[in-house]
Order: sequence, then C-alpha cells, then structure tokens
Amino acid sequence: MVDAPTSSSSLADLWKARYRQPPPDVALPENTVVRGLMAHRSVRAFSAASVPQGTLEAAIAAAQSASSSCNFQAWSVIAVTDPQRRARLAKLAGDQAFIAQAPLFLVWVADLSRLEHVADAHAQPHVALDYLESFTMAVADTSFAAQNAAAAFESFGLGIVYVGAVRNHPGEIASELGLPPRTVAVFGMCVGHPDRKQPTAIKPRLPQSAVLHHEKYAGSEVEVPAYDATMMQFRAEQGMSPQDWSTTVIGRIRDAKALHGRDRLREELVRRGFELR
Amino acid sequence: MVDAPTSSSSLADLWKARYRQPPPDVALPENTVVRGLMAHRSVRAFSAASVPQGTLEAAIAAAQSASSSCNFQAWSVIAVTDPQRRARLAKLAGDQAFIAQAPLFLVWVADLSRLEHVADAHAQPHVALDYLESFTMAVADTSFAAQNAAAAFESFGLGIVYVGAVRNHPGEIASELGLPPRTVAVFGMCVGHPDRKQPTAIKPRLPQSAVLHHEKYAGSEVEVPAYDATMMQFRAEQGMSPQDWSTTVIGRIRDAKALHGRDRLREELVRRGFELR
Repeated sequence: MVDAPTSSSSLADLWKARYRQPPPDVALPENTVVRGLMAHRSVRAFSAASVPQGTLEAAIAAAQSASSSCNFQAWSVIAVTDPQRRARLAKLAGDQAFIAQAPLFLVWVADLSRLEHVADAHAQPHVALDYLESFTMAVADTSFAAQNAAAAFESFGLGIVYVGAVRNHPGEIASELGLPPRTVAVFGMCVGHPDRKQPTAIKPRLPQSAVLHHEKYAGSEVEVPAYDATMMQFRAEQGMSPQDWSTTVIGRIRDAKALHGRDRLREELVRRGFELR
Repeated sequence: MVDAPTSSSSLADLWKARYRQPPPDVALPENTVVRGLMAHRSVRAFSAASVPQGTLEAAIAAAQSASSSCNFQAWSVIAVTDPQRRARLAKLAGDQAFIAQAPLFLVWVADLSRLEHVADAHAQPHVALDYLESFTMAVADTSFAAQNAAAAFESFGLGIVYVGAVRNHPGEIASELGLPPRTVAVFGMCVGHPDRKQPTAIKPRLPQSAVLHHEKYAGSEVEVPAYDATMMQFRAEQGMSPQDWSTTVIGRIRDAKALHGRDRLREELVRRGFELR
C-alpha cells in the first residue's frame, strides 16, 4: 500500500502513487506547480464550509488566462450556490448526492451564443457556427478554462470533481440555468473543502508509455494487463469491490444504455442550435 | 501601455494586464500556481535550444494527473522532434512557420482506439463509442490533459502555443503520425524556449462578468463594445493593424471558407471511425 502523497510530497513519490512504478532514470524537473497538478484527486465528500470570498474570482481569472482558439472565448460558466438549485441539478446529473452537498457547483458551458450576437450586432453572417468544428472548438476552449480553474481551486486547498452527467439531460439543465440557444452544459464541477474524514487517494493511471508516443503512434494493448492488475489492487486498497480496468471500461461502453441518456446528445445539441454540419 | 507582468508579478498586476481593469474589491487569494496560470501568453517564436531532458516526462505526468471521464483516459499524445516531420506537419497545419521552428511539437489525440481494443480483447461490444457523446468526452479529456501539460511546461520557463489547425487536414495528419481508426488529432502544441528578442504580451480577455454568471445565464452583449476598444488598444500596443474584437470574430465565423478545411471535420471524423451518432 502506497502512502497518500500530497502537493508537498516529492515528485518521485507523486510519480510512484500515480503510476505505481518507479520514476524514469532521467532527472525530472519539479516545482510547486507540477507537484500540485500531480497531487490531484477527485473529491466527492465536502465539509459544510462555503468557498472563501475571492476564490471563485481568482479561479475564473486563471480560467480566462488559458489559451482560447482565435481568442473566441467560446465558453461561459454558471456558479450555482443556491441549495435548491443545486439539489435540482444533482437530480438531473445522475442523481449524485455530492453535487447537492458541495457548496459551489460550476456548470461549464460551451458558448457560441456570444459569437452569434457579435455577428448579429453588425448584421453579419455566422455560418461557421453551424459546423461540428465550432462545437469541437468550444468544447476544447471550455475544457482548457475549466482545467485552469481546477488547478487554481486545488492550489487554495479546495477539492473538485468534474461531473460529466450534466450531459445526461442537456435540455433540462439549460432550462434550469436559463441557457440561450447555441449554448450547452459540457460538464459540471463541484467545489468545496474536502471532508477530512473521507480522504481520497491518487488514482493510478496507465503507464506513461501507453499514452506518450514518439514520432508515430504505437499501440498500447500490451500495457493493459499490468494496469488491470494495478487498478484491481487500488480498488482493494480503497475498500471497493474487485474490478479491473478492462471490466470497468467494458461495462461503460457496451451499449447505448450505458450512456445514461447521452446517446441523445446529438439530437439535444441540434435542438439547442448546434447544427453540427 | 501596461507593463508586461510575469508569473512573479502580483495577482493585482496580472489582473490589470489580463482585464485592463482594476481587480475587484474582494481580497483575492494568490499563490505561485495562480500567478503562473494568469501569466500565460502564447509563444510563437522560439530559440534553437531543445527542450531539457525530463521536461516532457514531467509535463505528461501532470497531464495524466488531470481528471478523466470514468477513468477512460481517452487520449494520446505524439511528441514530434524530427525536423522533417515537424516541417511536414507545419505545412499541413496552416503552413505556420513556428511549428517547424519549435523544437518539440506535441499532437494531442482524442483516442477511442484504446477502449475499442480493451473490448475487443474480451470479445465484448463497444457500441457507446459510436456516439457523439464519446467523441465529446474524448475531446474534453484530451483538453484537460493538454492544459495541465501547458501549465507544467510554462512552470519550467518554456513557452507554448496551441495549434487548432491540425484539424484542417485530419486525414493527412493521421497518415503522417500513423494514427489508427477511432483516433484524431484535436490540436497541436508547440513547446520551446521563448525567443527573448520577440517577447509576447498577456492578451486581454472579456471582463469576468461576461463569462461568469451567478445562478442563471445572463447575456454579455453589453460588455462587447468596451472589449472591442480594449483589443483595438492592445493591437496598437503590439504594432498590429487596427482591428476590434468584433471584426476579428466576424471575419472568422462569416462562412464555411473561414474554417480552412474544418468545415469537413464531420466527414473526416466519420472516415476515421467516429460514427458521431
């Protein structure tokens, strides 16, 4: 069993927790930023304390500082603190209790509406917004921004977890938040003080050689059995039911039903004004 | 003219450069991580020095530490250092010289191929991969990972710029990198030492009130004229031709031609095995 390292641990210890392998032979540069990023764990249990004043503003400033395709800034974020609204959103997003528990729920929105208004204000066409490219660009922009916010929140000692289940019912989420056409909630993010009585561990990932390729793509099938064993061990350490990674993956990609409504994402997006040409 | 702050400047100075507005009245928490994120600027001019040993490995460890939907880890990254290959990729990605100049070009790949192989190895179905949801999830996962890598590289004093133009010709990029079906290059990232003779500035963003909404979405049309003026001033400071934000946006969303080939993204994705149901 590996001790749970934190952002003040050495990069070597963080590497061992993340990969369950010794670090490579090459000297790794390290600093506060990289240690912080490597110490990430998703938090799904929060104390009752609210997020300190100024924290949201600083995190969103970090988010807006992320790169943005063509400086389009094709995203918005809705900060939800109202307990009733959080409870309704929790219900819509996979009925997950920690969404209602977290003092702050951020809904990250791919937003082509603002760009449409810019063109409309000058009576100009905006045909490019009707293409899948524009949706894809907006999802990437939203994600860059959100990930910077995640790093900022964690640097303040707060915990976060992403909530992909806001894509289960995009229409209802949009109604709840008053989202206009050409916008859609891409993911949520719970933010709060981690409940110290329910600490979380660093989740092991595939070996770096499985995702990092040099010059050309190389298959990673050969890496999977060892990672299956790693995840089996990790779940045992966490007191979870035994299951290897392959079994988890297979259960979640088997059929359309495993998508919990997200098999309708395309028609929901079209209904919300993304033509996805 | 605002002085160019760096990651060692105060958050107040970074805020002023990013928003061209004074910081809010609330006390903003700050630390090395947030200052680093807020100091981001895209770098498109690099010195000849290569990226130090160990830097790539540390950055990818940070990338793999980002959240991943269902722990699917649905991405790969190809590190390209070969000068001939960089030159060919530069040509394919909008003929941008800085891609060939940067010593390291990372191609970030949305990767459903690995998940398909996991199911195939157990003779199980993988129907969910055929849905737009799975592509969307993979784009978000890839972006979270890439953004962590960006923050890591910048924390080491390196500069980066994202390259969306790898989506101009996804088929040719895939051939160059040997990408299998159900994978696609989502964006590239140049990495290298910034050329000190061509310093870059912090690009102003929309006011925070334009992207951060409380409880419900609120339109941001009213914020655009002031930002138009800000971007006009920024471009003047940078010695660029005068153009406000609205004009830039309109020129890039006007018609399908403005997408430089990305109007074919949907058919290219289908050809690459993403059914996008």
